[in-house]
Amino acid sequence: MSFRIERDTMGELEVPADRYWGAQTARSLRFFAIGDERERMPLEVIHAFGVLKQAAALTNADLGLMPQDKADLIARAAAEVADGKLDDHFPLAVWQTGSGTQSNMNVNEVIANRAIEMAGGELGSKKPVHPNDDVNKSQSSNDTFPTAMHIAAAREVHDELLPALRHLRDVLARKAAQFESIIKVGRTHMMDAVPLTLGQEFSGYVHQLNDVIDAVGSALPRLYQLAIGGTAVGTGLNTHPRFADAVADRIAELTALPFITAPNKFAALAAHDAIVWMSGALKTAAAACMKIANDFRLLGSGPRCGIGELYLPENEPGSSIMPGKVNPTQSEALTMVAAQVFGNDVAINFGGASGHLELNVFKPLLIRNLLQSIRLLTDASRSFADHCVAGTVANEPQIAQYLDRNLMLVTALNPHIGYDNAAKAAKKAHHENLTLKESVVALGLLSPEDFDRLIRPADMLGPG
Amino acid sequence: MSFRIERDTMGELEVPADRYWGAQTARSLRFFAIGDERERMPLEVIHAFGVLKQAAALTNADLGLMPQDKADLIARAAAEVADGKLDDHFPLAVWQTGSGTQSNMNVNEVIANRAIEMAGGELGSKKPVHPNDDVNKSQSSNDTFPTAMHIAAAREVHDELLPALRHLRDVLARKAAQFESIIKVGRTHMMDAVPLTLGQEFSGYVHQLNDVIDAVGSALPRLYQLAIGGTAVGTGLNTHPRFADAVADRIAELTALPFITAPNKFAALAAHDAIVWMSGALKTAAAACMKIANDFRLLGSGPRCGIGELYLPENEPGSSIMPGKVNPTQSEALTMVAAQVFGNDVAINFGGASGHLELNVFKPLLIRNLLQSIRLLTDASRSFADHCVAGTVANEPQIAQYLDRNLMLVTALNPHIGYDNAAKAAKKAHHENLTLKESVVALGLLSPEDFDRLIRPADMLGPG
Amino acid sequence: MSFRIERDTMGELEVPADRYWGAQTARSLRFFAIGDERERMPLEVIHAFGVLKQAAALTNADLGLMPQDKADLIARAAAEVADGKLDDHFPLAVWQTGSGTQSNMNVNEVIANRAIEMAGGELGSKKPVHPNDDVNKSQSSNDTFPTAMHIAAAREVHDELLPALRHLRDVLARKAAQFESIIKVGRTHMMDAVPLTLGQEFSGYVHQLNDVIDAVGSALPRLYQLAIGGTAVGTGLNTHPRFADAVADRIAELTALPFITAPNKFAALAAHDAIVWMSGALKTAAAACMKIANDFRLLGSGPRCGIGELYLPENEPGSSIMPGKVNPTQSEALTMVAAQVFGNDVAINFGGASGHLELNVFKPLLIRNLLQSIRLLTDASRSFADHCVAGTVANEPQIAQYLDRNLMLVTALNPHIGYDNAAKAAKKAHHENLTLKESVVALGLLSPEDFDRLIRPADMLGPG
Amino acid sequence: MSFRIERDTMGELEVPADRYWGAQTARSLRFFAIGDERERMPLEVIHAFGVLKQAAALTNADLGLMPQDKADLIARAAAEVADGKLDDHFPLAVWQTGSGTQSNMNVNEVIANRAIEMAGGELGSKKPVHPNDDVNKSQSSNDTFPTAMHIAAAREVHDELLPALRHLRDVLARKAAQFESIIKVGRTHMMDAVPLTLGQEFSGYVHQLNDVIDAVGSALPRLYQLAIGGTAVGTGLNTHPRFADAVADRIAELTALPFITAPNKFAALAAHDAIVWMSGALKTAAAACMKIANDFRLLGSGPRCGIGELYLPENEPGSSIMPGKVNPTQSEALTMVAAQVFGNDVAINFGGASGHLELNVFKPLLIRNLLQSIRLLTDASRSFADHCVAGTVANEPQIAQYLDRNLMLVTALNPHIGYDNAAKAAKKAHHENLTLKESVVALGLLSPEDFDRLIRPADMLGPG
Repeated sequence: MSFRIERDTMGELEVPADRYWGAQTARSLRFFAIGDERERMPLEVIHAFGVLKQAAALTNADLGLMPQDKADLIARAAAEVADGKLDDHFPLAVWQTGSGTQSNMNVNEVIANRAIEMAGGELGSKKPVHPNDDVNKSQSSNDTFPTAMHIAAAREVHDELLPALRHLRDVLARKAAQFESIIKVGRTHMMDAVPLTLGQEFSGYVHQLNDVIDAVGSALPRLYQLAIGGTAVGTGLNTHPRFADAVADRIAELTALPFITAPNKFAALAAHDAIVWMSGALKTAAAACMKIANDFRLLGSGPRCGIGELYLPENEPGSSIMPGKVNPTQSEALTMVAAQVFGNDVAINFGGASGHLELNVFKPLLIRNLLQSIRLLTDASRSFADHCVAGTVANEPQIAQYLDRNLMLVTALNPHIGYDNAAKAAKKAHHENLTLKESVVALGLLSPEDFDRLIRPADMLGPG
Repeated sequence: MSFRIERDTMGELEVPADRYWGAQTARSLRFFAIGDERERMPLEVIHAFGVLKQAAALTNADLGLMPQDKADLIARAAAEVADGKLDDHFPLAVWQTGSGTQSNMNVNEVIANRAIEMAGGELGSKKPVHPNDDVNKSQSSNDTFPTAMHIAAAREVHDELLPALRHLRDVLARKAAQFESIIKVGRTHMMDAVPLTLGQEFSGYVHQLNDVIDAVGSALPRLYQLAIGGTAVGTGLNTHPRFADAVADRIAELTALPFITAPNKFAALAAHDAIVWMSGALKTAAAACMKIANDFRLLGSGPRCGIGELYLPENEPGSSIMPGKVNPTQSEALTMVAAQVFGNDVAINFGGASGHLELNVFKPLLIRNLLQSIRLLTDASRSFADHCVAGTVANEPQIAQYLDRNLMLVTALNPHIGYDNAAKAAKKAHHENLTLKESVVALGLLSPEDFDRLIRPADMLGPG
Repeated sequence: MSFRIERDTMGELEVPADRYWGAQTARSLRFFAIGDERERMPLEVIHAFGVLKQAAALTNADLGLMPQDKADLIARAAAEVADGKLDDHFPLAVWQTGSGTQSNMNVNEVIANRAIEMAGGELGSKKPVHPNDDVNKSQSSNDTFPTAMHIAAAREVHDELLPALRHLRDVLARKAAQFESIIKVGRTHMMDAVPLTLGQEFSGYVHQLNDVIDAVGSALPRLYQLAIGGTAVGTGLNTHPRFADAVADRIAELTALPFITAPNKFAALAAHDAIVWMSGALKTAAAACMKIANDFRLLGSGPRCGIGELYLPENEPGSSIMPGKVNPTQSEALTMVAAQVFGNDVAINFGGASGHLELNVFKPLLIRNLLQSIRLLTDASRSFADHCVAGTVANEPQIAQYLDRNLMLVTALNPHIGYDNAAKAAKKAHHENLTLKESVVALGLLSPEDFDRLIRPADMLGPG
Repeated sequence: MSFRIERDTMGELEVPADRYWGAQTARSLRFFAIGDERERMPLEVIHAFGVLKQAAALTNADLGLMPQDKADLIARAAAEVADGKLDDHFPLAVWQTGSGTQSNMNVNEVIANRAIEMAGGELGSKKPVHPNDDVNKSQSSNDTFPTAMHIAAAREVHDELLPALRHLRDVLARKAAQFESIIKVGRTHMMDAVPLTLGQEFSGYVHQLNDVIDAVGSALPRLYQLAIGGTAVGTGLNTHPRFADAVADRIAELTALPFITAPNKFAALAAHDAIVWMSGALKTAAAACMKIANDFRLLGSGPRCGIGELYLPENEPGSSIMPGKVNPTQSEALTMVAAQVFGNDVAINFGGASGHLELNVFKPLLIRNLLQSIRLLTDASRSFADHCVAGTVANEPQIAQYLDRNLMLVTALNPHIGYDNAAKAAKKAHHENLTLKESVVALGLLSPEDFDRLIRPADMLGPG
């Protein structure tokens, strides 16, 4: 491997000749050898930085703070970062300085060297583009990193998670419609209860999804507020008075999302309540997903020794030893993802609560966990929709058989014979293994005819 | 102690003669001896049940399902429950059946017996008021308990928590205004950084509070949606078609809060995403409170061997062994409360994710944790506002002394001498124990006059 | 209400005439009105303080630091605290100073005044017993509060939790023996799998309990290490060189538990890893309990439309609307408790990680959560053992019927016909609704005789 | 890209020609497109599977169940997996079936095809080595996956984490010795308190590390218990009676760690308390690390406007905007890691508590989180030791200056002038900005000479 020399304010270091990064990135690699490539700063953050650096350079030029040609050079290099063309040049770990300074500098260094290269200069020369004085102009890690966090998270939520949740909602809604007239036993406490339709049961899932889509959506606007313009401590030192607004406008334009400048930059650097709050929405989505996925595996249990009201799609062999076994694997993946989201939420709470004075230094932790939660919920809910819900079929004979046996139909008799008598009938049937009708008649509570008239599951699906 | 006999569908039990509860309450006491009186079902839930039972009885009468005089009798007894007059009659533990059925029956039994007493009847006779057939008419535990959960939580959030958070916000805002022109050193990574005003620092806290007030407020409307009308599994079996809407209207009237009937009763019984989501808002509030409280203890540390920029009120002796010691005890209480809210949130996530089929059976856990989080945040944020923030005084000499020493003022020189030269000057000053000016001049980077012109903290508080 | 005047180093305050507490307690009541009586400092801590103050006074006398008669006076008053005779005199909230200083002073004040009363003196006079100079002699809140934490927690674990877990283990073991020869279908992924005996299934629960009993036991010795003797920062300033060891011996004697002095007092004040670690054991116990309780509710589900392999005891009516319904309520209580323990564990992690320099100031939070977790696990596991496990009965006809239907018996054919053929047979049976035998024979894989010889559930319960 | 056809019991699929995996792996890739390469099954698990498959094949031969030459062939291929030579052949996501069946089959398929290749056969032909009948012989995913979990986790804890924690402990111990005689102000509640030495302060950290090393060590033996031999539900169906013990012996031999067969296989498949418990130890380690890392950043804060008692190593430029700034970045990385461990612990609790009947289907989640926690704690504690603690230097002039100012030295006067008088002196000094001596003398409490005799910090570092 061949190397070149890069330098920063602390001295010189070798970096691989085919990489654009500079001395500060090299330092971070040396001092933060924590975890392997799985533990790298998420590329979503790097790409967001590309957008930001582009916007900042152009804004600096607009405000007369930088020659247009230099700004254009930086913007072109930054666009390559934004577009994922330079992903191999961002080797740093999440587990670095808590401000993300080292990743900001990694971005500054890569853009500077790439811009220098475009301009025919010498890598590492810092001419004609200096990573701090030019690429980072009007900026600090303390405002750029949280800006990249918000851009990355908002894009993932808007472009990925919300469509995936809507898709799951829609697939569930189609099933709810399809199952509208299948009457089945209800189960509360896992015990037999009064009937409902399978479509009604699924309508609950649809409603849960609608609610979590609302929750996620309602937490999104705060991610649109950007810290950029606050520089080191929130005051905006070393920025032009119009910089904060102008750069947010540029970012909004580049991303087609309604980003604005944060109304209070002190909070935007020192706290990350917007991340904590979005994670609160994600964990609510996880709770809903876990409930729904668990229902699928309960209703699909069997095929012969469980509840067995649903046939889930047979996607793959389920066992390396038990031939022909099929398992609710999509439910399992989704519930594992939900558990991960709950764990990530706690990590985010710890980090979010731990800002001190002018800076929260748990930033990389926060965005790593938020982005993982978003990605996992996105992919797993889409997978569950497509590979489980869409292909689920009702086992109608089994459903009918249970409905017929269910003693809790007695509830419909409450207004006619009273709760206490109804209880007597149900217990007698249970303990003597009778049908409900046999029991009610034997107790002399109703005639067989009245029983048949009053106990009709199809009349028990709503008020009135 | 004297006893009377009560009975339910399983047989007879003794209950204390001076208590209104009946057989099912007695059974629960026997089978759920878990924890002591601190572990009882929160009275907020009981009072909410009082409201609900009142509303249900009157609605039943309105709909012609119950004689008006019986409804009035029930409503009068229920009003006593709502008003806290019968608190001693609700002895059950949180740790009971996960549907809260036993507490619903406790309420039904107490109201029935109290109504019987008002009517001159015999306690335990179930005449003229039956706990199931009358007090529970048109209802199930499965829809009443979540309704009581929502009424209790919404009232506590609306009446208690939001005013307390607004109060803390207002007290902080007054301080921000008062401290507007005190320039101080900023600190990022706990290390000296560029200056800001103490008022700016406090404005960040005010903004955080505003954000969490919004977050809590945005999660509130879903608590206004009531499960009542769903009965056992969400279908509304055994209810009048107009019952659900009418009873929600009655509850809205009785509480002066905008309660409505839940749009999907299946989800309202089987899931508690509204609780999970509100807890997500509360933990966001906790994160903000922890950050702010920690800042107070950092800034107030000392008095002589810490940062010491703030004097916190001296409320009480701080040590049993160190005479004259005063500690940031309000910060400590508030941060402990925040940690509790984070813990409660996890318990709520577990419970909220664990519904199965037509019912979530972690209801008492959910509401216990949510109400505790609300109460603790309410009281601790108010206590912190009144007993800490309000009396906080800036230690201006100390603040001025730090400002003077701070090497990071060098940042203002970046546009003039470049980042690399500025770094050299700061390091030289640090390592040779010079003032920044001495260092800059010694390095020949600026004349003393230029230094004085460029390094003016008062010019470093904003863009431009 | 009548009052008397008490004073501390900050001035005078009124306290109720019939209470022994003094000025510092009164101050705390005023400044920490957070939560109601449910939020008081746990009495287990107060009683542990009683033991400690007794031990300290007698040790001070032994070492010649205090006249014997004064020590005896203090010890007598402290014994009343230890024995719970003065519980009404400890009104302070958990949510106070994070060192627990206010509760230490509450104890000092109550003991001082009670001792003064015994000596015929005037309450509040601090003569002949001063709360700081005498009751707190050789002590600091910073070492007494963690000592009381450890005494309280160790006693609860040793005397309450471990016996309860052993009891649950023993009741499960009895059931495992009783169910030893009942062969049933196994279920993995909730899907039908190869058979095992009900006794084997229960043996897994017994083993889990054994493991968590070991885990709890292995975390206990660190709770036996006491901070007392460290005074304010761990150095032991103002103590006699033999005090730390001697007072630990006294405490061991008074409690009959093997308490010793902590080997490093700096860690004992500034960190609470022993609490964090014990909570790690409790959450492991919670995980085991949740698994077992969930299995009971799955196996008991039905009675006619679920798995229904177990009959759980019918302790109480399960529904206010569905007559005759019986629910797995003990499982529900135990799983709710487990969720609470998981939540408490997170609060403890937050608090445990948040010590700074010479003191962790999340002490009341830590002990409150640990004691609640211990208490709830104790009571709920005992309740589950006695009111659920002990009365559980196998539904043998149902179990036999499932066993007969189960297609996964095909697994025993793997060594004979290969996995791929076995899979074919199972699928054919499933999709064509055949018995396994019909399918295997139809595919020409085995003769009916060979099938009967090879597929014998009773031969599938172990290796070989 | 060229492909070949592979088949399983559900049909045929294309796989890349240069990959050893087969049809079931291809199915999982199709149905579980969740997350990117960062979300793959950890290689530690794959390598552990290599060990296990080697051991199983050789054991099958030893027991006469497989020809020796076939066993040797499998063992050679498996050894390549164990040694990491085939890492590119394991593309599956963590988020798959909860039993890890798909990864077990991935391993079976890769080993089978690699063995076939070694034997000169045709990939995908399953001859002479069948992935299920041969490589998986005597095994099930349900016992192999938890076995691989334990092997992977135990090796990482034993070989990586424990040495790293001991290293951190040793580096701290060296510092404690080095700082033995530096007397400094103590701080409790972040407020000035009585003195101790810097070495004493560090001794607390050493003790914490010792304790967490013990905790981790005490949770390790349960990871040495292996599920292998239980096959599908714990009974050991389709295994030789000596298989379980023999294969554990082989694994012990191959790994040089004391693995044994699990005493109860039902629990070993259905529960993962050993993982939950180890995670409890890891979170205890995280709590200790967070405390220590926070202390470093507090004590190193400044350099001129904070506490500044320690100089932390200047590893890298700290700010992209503030020249010359150096930050406590190693503390930041370690505290972020600790927060992640707390989050992972919650995910593990969720998964660990969620086993049902004969199987826990959160296995991939559990091991992913445990291994990440181990890895991050290992690397971050080592990084902190080497890049922060080792180079930390005491700022003795600053320490001396604080010590001199500290009013809490007054505590040493308690035995001489009483707590109340001592408090008066401290307060007077504080409010009138006097030295303690000036205040004590002004109040007439002591002569200057007595003051000097009694107030000697060097005498305040221990009892007596």
